Amino acid sequence: MKKNKALLVSVLVMILVILSGIATLTAQEISWMRNRVVSPEIHTDNSVTFRIFAPDATTIKINGGWMEGWGTTEPLVKNDTGLWTLTVGPLQPDIYTYTFQINGITLMDPANVQVMRDGTRYASMLLVPGKASELYAVQDVPHGTLSKVWYESPTVNMTRRMYVYTPPGYDSGSDKYPVFYLLHGGGGDEDAWSTLGRACQIMDNLIARGKAKPMIVVMTNGNPNDAASPGEAPPRKVSSDPMSGIGGMGSGVFEKSLVNDVIPFIESHYRTLPGRANRAVSGLSMGGMQTINLAFDYTDTFDYFGVMSMGLTPPQDGRDWFPDVDTRIKNLEKKGYKLYWIGCGTADFLHEASGNLVAKMEENNLEFTYRESSGGHTWSNWRIYLSEFAPLLFK
Amino acid sequence: MKKNKALLVSVLVMILVILSGIATLTAQEISWMRNRVVSPEIHTDNSVTFRIFAPDATTIKINGGWMEGWGTTEPLVKNDTGLWTLTVGPLQPDIYTYTFQINGITLMDPANVQVMRDGTRYASMLLVPGKASELYAVQDVPHGTLSKVWYESPTVNMTRRMYVYTPPGYDSGSDKYPVFYLLHGGGGDEDAWSTLGRACQIMDNLIARGKAKPMIVVMTNGNPNDAASPGEAPPRKVSSDPMSGIGGMGSGVFEKSLVNDVIPFIESHYRTLPGRANRAVSGLSMGGMQTINLAFDYTDTFDYFGVMSMGLTPPQDGRDWFPDVDTRIKNLEKKGYKLYWIGCGTADFLHEASGNLVAKMEENNLEFTYRESSGGHTWSNWRIYLSEFAPLLFK
Repeated sequence: MKKNKALLVSVLVMILVILSGIATLTAQEISWMRNRVVSPEIHTDNSVTFRIFAPDATTIKINGGWMEGWGTTEPLVKNDTGLWTLTVGPLQPDIYTYTFQINGITLMDPANVQVMRDGTRYASMLLVPGKASELYAVQDVPHGTLSKVWYESPTVNMTRRMYVYTPPGYDSGSDKYPVFYLLHGGGGDEDAWSTLGRACQIMDNLIARGKAKPMIVVMTNGNPNDAASPGEAPPRKVSSDPMSGIGGMGSGVFEKSLVNDVIPFIESHYRTLPGRANRAVSGLSMGGMQTINLAFDYTDTFDYFGVMSMGLTPPQDGRDWFPDVDTRIKNLEKKGYKLYWIGCGTADFLHEASGNLVAKMEENNLEFTYRESSGGHTWSNWRIYLSEFAPLLFK
Repeated sequence: MKKNKALLVSVLVMILVILSGIATLTAQEISWMRNRVVSPEIHTDNSVTFRIFAPDATTIKINGGWMEGWGTTEPLVKNDTGLWTLTVGPLQPDIYTYTFQINGITLMDPANVQVMRDGTRYASMLLVPGKASELYAVQDVPHGTLSKVWYESPTVNMTRRMYVYTPPGYDSGSDKYPVFYLLHGGGGDEDAWSTLGRACQIMDNLIARGKAKPMIVVMTNGNPNDAASPGEAPPRKVSSDPMSGIGGMGSGVFEKSLVNDVIPFIESHYRTLPGRANRAVSGLSMGGMQTINLAFDYTDTFDYFGVMSMGLTPPQDGRDWFPDVDTRIKNLEKKGYKLYWIGCGTADFLHEASGNLVAKMEENNLEFTYRESSGGHTWSNWRIYLSEFAPLLFK
């Protein structure tokens, strides 16, 4: 930045600050305004009004999950008290995340207590009610228990954390249950399915309606060298680890630890039904890759596979993500299975890879269910896939 | 706001935006800068550097828990790439929350994934390491399980949520354990002790060091008419409820539901040791009031009481918060107890009320332990109190 221009900008800022200072409300008035802002307000037609009180801001925009295109924004409009407003929609029933942008800075809606973390980013959460989202809402039905559980993983020589959902009735009964292992995507962790994925609400509601069998749902951390989600693990002994986070993808280490460490822990600590007829696995994106590998290499462990937003991706920069696929896929035929389910959105950047998996299954005369949805590589799709896949299990 | 001045401000803003626009970096450069910001950076002497990349902001301040006085801020300084920086401290080992303020708007540190919710407000979290905070860190020790559990509460005719910590070894053993009921303050909910209060880390670390007995810790929602924390409960059937949130304080309804609903649920669903010798209760602020009431009215239920940052507050606007105290306190003497612990900070606005409780105990020749700390009505104190109170239980 040139010095003279910087000086001019500074002087203008100073004038502006002085003028705004005179014009703005008292601290008490500002505090009062801020505390009575209602945002988001969902109207009866599912249009939604967003509000933020920011008398000193010069531009405020909103970025929301209902908008087409990544990084799209819409401006809010300021009134003379400093309250900024925008009404959008009507929106389709779903869960959306959104953020405000003030002078280039992203922040959550200060009036909205509902927040979602996606990897390292936080955003405000909006549930637009309706038929398509009623499985995602906390309903007045029996609720399962969600537990944050630590287990030993000799495969990676680490104590690791996972989330375990036990269905309503588990804690007061003596029944044994089948187990569904539900895997997150790259950048995610063991927290993702129960927050962004609404897994507990979806399972509670499906079970209450008799649509899904009561089952245990195990949500692991699929990054084999991370003990737990950010801030929840003891400090690492190594300063950098290429296997940390998404770096472990394709190594097969997570898949091995799931079968050798997680499943024995679950089956020795919970009342579970035995055998592969009572085990299902499904994952999205990176978790979909892990599911593909588990179906190839551990088909005698599971009878149900769900591959969400993933497929046979071509080699990248000389790396073959699915080596020996033609040999390994023979395991599926040899050992058999009850369900191989593939779900992908038409706008997903892995739609073609998903098509490759479909083609490979057909080439080998292997049965599968293919569910093509609209939309892309989004939680909106993964919540739909979970809602449709879980009812197919253990029947 | 006067129209002419508003117009002048608008024109100056436009000039400023145009000038800044020319001077700023490309979108790609901005994205690159934003993604490599490290904040907070804790130096070896426990001074801490905060950074935020915001080329278009005109002022950025920080408000942090280490600062004296409510609402105190310190300015960050901008360099010519648009990166704002401030180094503070060295800070005392503890957990702090902090927020940035940009042109009057409060936001979290975008580079920090660790976040804490206090009621309806979110802030970034900073753990400054050292002897005084090592119980709060996730250490490489055995970890207990934290479960989000739903239970029927006939007292309030509602299905409600609580958090249950079971100690390391619980899930793989057959031992029975004593139970510690840990209550939050006004504005809080069942989530507060395990997040702001670091209860799981404190218990894990105390147990690993042999300082506290392995015990179950039950963290309820102390607002008797709220089923669960914001967004986690089914929609209410009533639009407004004077007993919701802190409105139920002093009604005695929560205390009744704890004894009649929570304790029977815990003792029928978990492996617990029987009788009052194996039950403790402690709470902060509103939870301290509930603890005082439980000691007066249900002393045959508990042998251990911990009153944090609360005491005998005088009547307010004609409302007597502790009616019949002289009669009810006789129960304590009559039925006996093992520990009555009172903790308060010298700067706490309830320090005088705490003194009233001390005086009333002395007046009745009742034994108690009084722990006076520095500081005020803060989580910094409540974490210390939990760290000191838990080791005294069930011995």
